[in-house]
Amino acid sequence: MSTAPDIYKQQGFGHVVAPKAPYGVLIIDFVNGFADPLTFGGGNIEPAIECTRGLLDVARARRWPVAHTRVVYQDDGADANIFALKVPPILALREDAPQSQIVPQLQPCNGELVLRKIHPSAFFGTSLASWFSQRGVQTLLIAGCTTSGCVRASVVDAMCHGFRPLVVTDCVGDRSLRAHEANLFDMQQKYATLMSRDDALQATEAAQPHGAPP
Amino acid sequence: MSTAPDIYKQQGFGHVVAPKAPYGVLIIDFVNGFADPLTFGGGNIEPAIECTRGLLDVARARRWPVAHTRVVYQDDGADANIFALKVPPILALREDAPQSQIVPQLQPCNGELVLRKIHPSAFFGTSLASWFSQRGVQTLLIAGCTTSGCVRASVVDAMCHGFRPLVVTDCVGDRSLRAHEANLFDMQQKYATLMSRDDALQATEAAQPHGAPP
Amino acid sequence: MSTAPDIYKQQGFGHVVAPKAPYGVLIIDFVNGFADPLTFGGGNIEPAIECTRGLLDVARARRWPVAHTRVVYQDDGADANIFALKVPPILALREDAPQSQIVPQLQPCNGELVLRKIHPSAFFGTSLASWFSQRGVQTLLIAGCTTSGCVRASVVDAMCHGFRPLVVTDCVGDRSLRAHEANLFDMQQKYATLMSRDDALQATEAAQPHGAPP
Amino acid sequence: MSTAPDIYKQQGFGHVVAPKAPYGVLIIDFVNGFADPLTFGGGNIEPAIECTRGLLDVARARRWPVAHTRVVYQDDGADANIFALKVPPILALREDAPQSQIVPQLQPCNGELVLRKIHPSAFFGTSLASWFSQRGVQTLLIAGCTTSGCVRASVVDAMCHGFRPLVVTDCVGDRSLRAHEANLFDMQQKYATLMSRDDALQATEAAQPHGAPP
Repeated sequence: MSTAPDIYKQQGFGHVVAPKAPYGVLIIDFVNGFADPLTFGGGNIEPAIECTRGLLDVARARRWPVAHTRVVYQDDGADANIFALKVPPILALREDAPQSQIVPQLQPCNGELVLRKIHPSAFFGTSLASWFSQRGVQTLLIAGCTTSGCVRASVVDAMCHGFRPLVVTDCVGDRSLRAHEANLFDMQQKYATLMSRDDALQATEAAQPHGAPP
Repeated sequence: MSTAPDIYKQQGFGHVVAPKAPYGVLIIDFVNGFADPLTFGGGNIEPAIECTRGLLDVARARRWPVAHTRVVYQDDGADANIFALKVPPILALREDAPQSQIVPQLQPCNGELVLRKIHPSAFFGTSLASWFSQRGVQTLLIAGCTTSGCVRASVVDAMCHGFRPLVVTDCVGDRSLRAHEANLFDMQQKYATLMSRDDALQATEAAQPHGAPP
Repeated sequence: MSTAPDIYKQQGFGHVVAPKAPYGVLIIDFVNGFADPLTFGGGNIEPAIECTRGLLDVARARRWPVAHTRVVYQDDGADANIFALKVPPILALREDAPQSQIVPQLQPCNGELVLRKIHPSAFFGTSLASWFSQRGVQTLLIAGCTTSGCVRASVVDAMCHGFRPLVVTDCVGDRSLRAHEANLFDMQQKYATLMSRDDALQATEAAQPHGAPP
Repeated sequence: MSTAPDIYKQQGFGHVVAPKAPYGVLIIDFVNGFADPLTFGGGNIEPAIECTRGLLDVARARRWPVAHTRVVYQDDGADANIFALKVPPILALREDAPQSQIVPQLQPCNGELVLRKIHPSAFFGTSLASWFSQRGVQTLLIAGCTTSGCVRASVVDAMCHGFRPLVVTDCVGDRSLRAHEANLFDMQQKYATLMSRDDALQATEAAQPHGAPP
């Protein structure tokens, strides 16, 4: 890919879009089934979950709106969609299945949105965009898995809905490191700003809502 | 990536989803600006355009609904979005700009839908899903560019809207062959069926609407 | 309103849109809380529920896809929206609240879609359009409540998504008969075909899927 | 309807939702064809257009984002939808038709969004929600026509997208005064705040962006 970045730059891709307050956090599909390498996990998903703990702590201290997603299909599979035809085991993620519960490290707090979804994007078929819009959010810090699947699909939609996507690179993971890298590249060129967690938290430190704890 | 496909297979990804009638065709952003390597083109986009001529001929003979998209921003840039912040030159694609006109080889016919879009996905902010739904379409043959950008975003959305995406591999192109390949891989594992044009046309030959010409 | 229909007719409104197979059924918010005049019910909602029993029986015999909706807010009210600001008691409709369970007479069967919603339209923030689109549905028979609220909002969206709305007049109800009538008028002029249940079932009798029971 | 408002109040409808900055303005379908009583106009549409001039002047002075919509079908009618089956003459509103141009009194300025639409709601199949969301808008002042058609559909969607709809009662009009009144009633009970133009401009006077002209 030695020359690929050159053509992107020549054609005007990859401009930096600075984070802009107010901020929100979206944590995609960090459920047991995606933490488990024998189900849908593997690769760098486990360290991404650990890294997201610190992101969530700061987001709560800064009183940012936080949304979590879970993949949940109807118990009888009545809502099986084309996605489930491509990946049939996904139908096992039902309301009460252990595999579809959010991982213990990232349990939602009161006031945080917890969405059921059956599509890659956290926005498709949900009220997520409306929820962030109602809060005036301009930039979405995005964590979750997988980078090449639901994260990327959500990043594209976040941008389309008018939010600046800020992909927190060490808080997103994928079963395939190669797919992880290839999709970070695409997102950086066309859709999102990429930062490590610590850089992202520093870049968004200044503009806090009045009265937020330090 | 020697082991990556193994984990996908083990976890249940990549099932084949057979094409199912009725069919429709979606041709994404084959406009002059994306045919031109000095604007947004390059890589294998030009041969993909040539290959799409034959796809379009057969689609018309089979009386399939066909939709084309163009990227069109408002003349004064009032609709500049986050995408335009990432890729500022995209704003030059205005209603009357030569770069935003569909390439001569693929001029739309009467009765074909021609959509203006300002997002990667052909479905976002348009009536495209409703148009195919109103025609009962079950499988969408997808051509256009770029594989790693608007094609992939449209494939994900096509699937979410309930259509089976059939990516016609020699009718989609990208300025970067590496990005082209990486995104075909992702789509094949999670979202779409991949076939060459000739295979796709053969696989969809049987079920024609009554009275359609041979 | 002596002259109002005249101007509608003169201006070209109110054309009849004949039902077209395949068919689907959408039953909106027939939950305990809307059957109860002391909560959100009253008017002609109760008889509409009774009438919908017969609609559902036939729909199942004809093997039509059937979708039900329930209003369900998150237990902690984290998803309270503008609608909940206008109608605060709606937040009591939570996952396990008796008031948000579908009425006993219309219990969903296996294979029927049951959607949670927090907006008037059954389509907004849900995968309903995709579900009917995946089944090729062309006409939606619509029952539920209230005529002036969630039914009308869903009818408008059904039409926008490319489905022909067929409002089953004795299967929709409202706490206010005046609002019921005024909204049936608007829908008939601009969005939908209106038929009684028996007329609707007769008009859709011919085109059944092969092999369906009589 | 002597008792109808009572049941609405008893059941918790009709709460006042105060306007909240930042503000935006949406002007729906004030095009020549809807100003003309021989096409789609009549009733109180003409005075609503006149009243909207003052709303637009103040919105510009206060530097609010302003969006206009036009109904525009494809020249060959390829995008004819169910709405066009119900109201066939609507297909005459094409890109260059005089009837689909915004009325002279309300010509858009640079930087204002002008959207083509083919559905009742200004949000369906457009990027309108994203545009206001990108600007952090919390309350939408809504003008246009018709009250019982595209205004109401847009008000419902505005609310669903997370914006507080503020219907400016003397800036919305309908060919039927009865339909106008019936729909204002429904919107006031469930979806929107209703104010006259002067009251709306006064209620939103306080919170201007810094540096805006008086």
